[in-house]
Amino acid sequence: MSTETFSITVFRGDGIGVDVTNSAIEVLDAVQTDVGGFRLQYEYLHAGAGYFRETGKDIAPGAEAKAGSADAIYLGAIGLPGVRHEDGTEISPHLRLRDQFELYAGVRPVKAYPNTPRRLSDPRAAEIDLIVLRESTEGLFYSAAVHDRSVVIGDDEVRDILRITRPTTEKLHDFAFELARKRKAQGSGQGLVTCVDKANVFRSMAFFRKVFDERAAKFPDIERAYNYVDAQALDLIRQPWAFDVLVTENMFGDILSDLAGGLVGGMGMAACAEIGDHHGLFQPAHGSAPDIMGQDWANPLAAILSGALMLDYLGDNSGNNKLYEAARQIEHAVYHGFSTQRIRPMEFGGDMGTHAVTTELLDILRTSR
Amino acid sequence: MSTETFSITVFRGDGIGVDVTNSAIEVLDAVQTDVGGFRLQYEYLHAGAGYFRETGKDIAPGAEAKAGSADAIYLGAIGLPGVRHEDGTEISPHLRLRDQFELYAGVRPVKAYPNTPRRLSDPRAAEIDLIVLRESTEGLFYSAAVHDRSVVIGDDEVRDILRITRPTTEKLHDFAFELARKRKAQGSGQGLVTCVDKANVFRSMAFFRKVFDERAAKFPDIERAYNYVDAQALDLIRQPWAFDVLVTENMFGDILSDLAGGLVGGMGMAACAEIGDHHGLFQPAHGSAPDIMGQDWANPLAAILSGALMLDYLGDNSGNNKLYEAARQIEHAVYHGFSTQRIRPMEFGGDMGTHAVTTELLDILRTSR
Ligand SMILES: CC(C)[C@H](C(=O)O)[C@@H](O)C(=O)O
Ligand SMILES: CC(C)[C@H](C(=O)O)[C@@H](O)C(=O)O
Repeated sequence: MSTETFSITVFRGDGIGVDVTNSAIEVLDAVQTDVGGFRLQYEYLHAGAGYFRETGKDIAPGAEAKAGSADAIYLGAIGLPGVRHEDGTEISPHLRLRDQFELYAGVRPVKAYPNTPRRLSDPRAAEIDLIVLRESTEGLFYSAAVHDRSVVIGDDEVRDILRITRPTTEKLHDFAFELARKRKAQGSGQGLVTCVDKANVFRSMAFFRKVFDERAAKFPDIERAYNYVDAQALDLIRQPWAFDVLVTENMFGDILSDLAGGLVGGMGMAACAEIGDHHGLFQPAHGSAPDIMGQDWANPLAAILSGALMLDYLGDNSGNNKLYEAARQIEHAVYHGFSTQRIRPMEFGGDMGTHAVTTELLDILRTSR
Repeated sequence: MSTETFSITVFRGDGIGVDVTNSAIEVLDAVQTDVGGFRLQYEYLHAGAGYFRETGKDIAPGAEAKAGSADAIYLGAIGLPGVRHEDGTEISPHLRLRDQFELYAGVRPVKAYPNTPRRLSDPRAAEIDLIVLRESTEGLFYSAAVHDRSVVIGDDEVRDILRITRPTTEKLHDFAFELARKRKAQGSGQGLVTCVDKANVFRSMAFFRKVFDERAAKFPDIERAYNYVDAQALDLIRQPWAFDVLVTENMFGDILSDLAGGLVGGMGMAACAEIGDHHGLFQPAHGSAPDIMGQDWANPLAAILSGALMLDYLGDNSGNNKLYEAARQIEHAVYHGFSTQRIRPMEFGGDMGTHAVTTELLDILRTSR
């Protein structure tokens, strides 16, 4: 069997980013050894607030070019309290990476695992299985401080810009419908895409919805729905099980993915893929949580599940089925770990820290072979 | 006893706006008769999507001037499906009223009443009692289509602007701290203001937070906290009982107030006051729900509680204590109605429509005199 090699640029970043990345890599290594047929070759590079504090730069020289020619980018988490730019904003090289590699499709799966905390009293909360598809290059984040596109008028006024463009929006909605189609085929989704916007108030959002309708015409097999973002926030409390793929503007997606993540336990399960036409970046959606770093407390599963999303992406790009197989192994092991209560993260009131969760997951992978 | 007269401009608006406004006026009339010492004099004017469909205008000629010279403005709800501007946005004269009367302080109380649905399984959800203070004139809504301030580049791109200014932000934060102080004095709040922003990413939001810190210095008796809007959405799931006053940008406040409203049953309890230095507008935060209009299904309590907020506002402006007394009567009657289960709105699975809830509440007001 021939072995295909994929180059991965890894930014472990700050705080718990380092620990959870290490866990993810251990798990990726385990499935690669087990499944065979592909090899991940990592190059570790610096980026983040710690690096900025030492060097005055938020990312190592040449790192962007290296990441740009890698097959995928993996990132832990970035940010340290007190390390900020003069304007008060945080060190955010990852926002620049989203922009420069045109990673428009921010895929944020939200799924209820067995024996994880349910915040909602309705038993149907056990069925939550949705994707927040967050556009990740424009919208309000067009104006993220790291891009230096705000209008600052002395100490009196600041304007940020929410930008919606046709090319990005077309690709985003196509991605949403294709994702819904794929999920339906896999039996995990309902074949439904909901456009979440504020088209009743903003021209940018009415345009976002108009492009949604144009693209929907190409996907007659997929149902479409609409929701205003405020009503969507309420509906995620009322009936989150009714949704499949939610496609939305960058800032709205940031808020809704945290909200939805909260319904299935918290950010420790929040995996994230940021995908463009030519690049993909994978990272847990949680922050660097410096308050718990080095305490072996963090839940590494968001990072590990982001690794599985990376394998799927590499599989899509290469046509190499072994990568899908490896991704499914990880996902099944996590599911199995929760249903058998072999995985009990401290985040969920359990007794297992970062290391113990990782070790147990590796053991499940070994024994379920 | 002398009777002070207050002029109220009433826009019943569209859909259920008409019914719930009628309920609110009935209740206001009842407490005014009972308490005495003040008289509300209503002038009913047209605004909304129905009016637009008939006349091509979203508000009656001269209505803005009349509303501007009234002591307060009361509004039901606005909007009808299919009645839209050419760009796809809705008929929203109320957004223009917020802008032109500089109603910067959008006060949205979120309180758990006894025997109303709890979405969260944690029993502490019964203690939810917070205010979302939504800035209501600028932020992203600076660019609401009704203001015609978007940049539309052919069929290819639309830009909206999020604007934060020092004068409005100073007044907003002062309002937040004063509100927290008042709530603490009344025993309903914790004396805590949380600034909800995205200061880690946006210059506008870093500025919003900077002004918050400047103003906080004048309120040493009030505790302050910070949260990013995405984390706040998650925290509203995790521990909504931990918050008191949340002060935030317009669009964020729109989302968070619906989300928080969802935790205590739904929008049928969501009262709203929009307050400026010289004007005040009072309306339920829910929409016109044309799908249920004319069916006597709507919960009128958001509208009725908005009426109580109006009485408080008139009391603040006039120094007439009778208005506070009347406002407390309404709030106590609602509370009493839920604790005794005399009030059972259909919205919460009960057997009472708009009319029955109103009648029962009037009965409670009469008998508890
Ligand atoms: C840390 C921050 C820049 C980031 C974002 O808002 O995109 C985070 O909240 C996320 O969701 O990935
Ligand atoms: C209908 C809409 C214009 C309005 C808003 O977004 O302000 C509504 O959602 C609200 O919250 O009052």
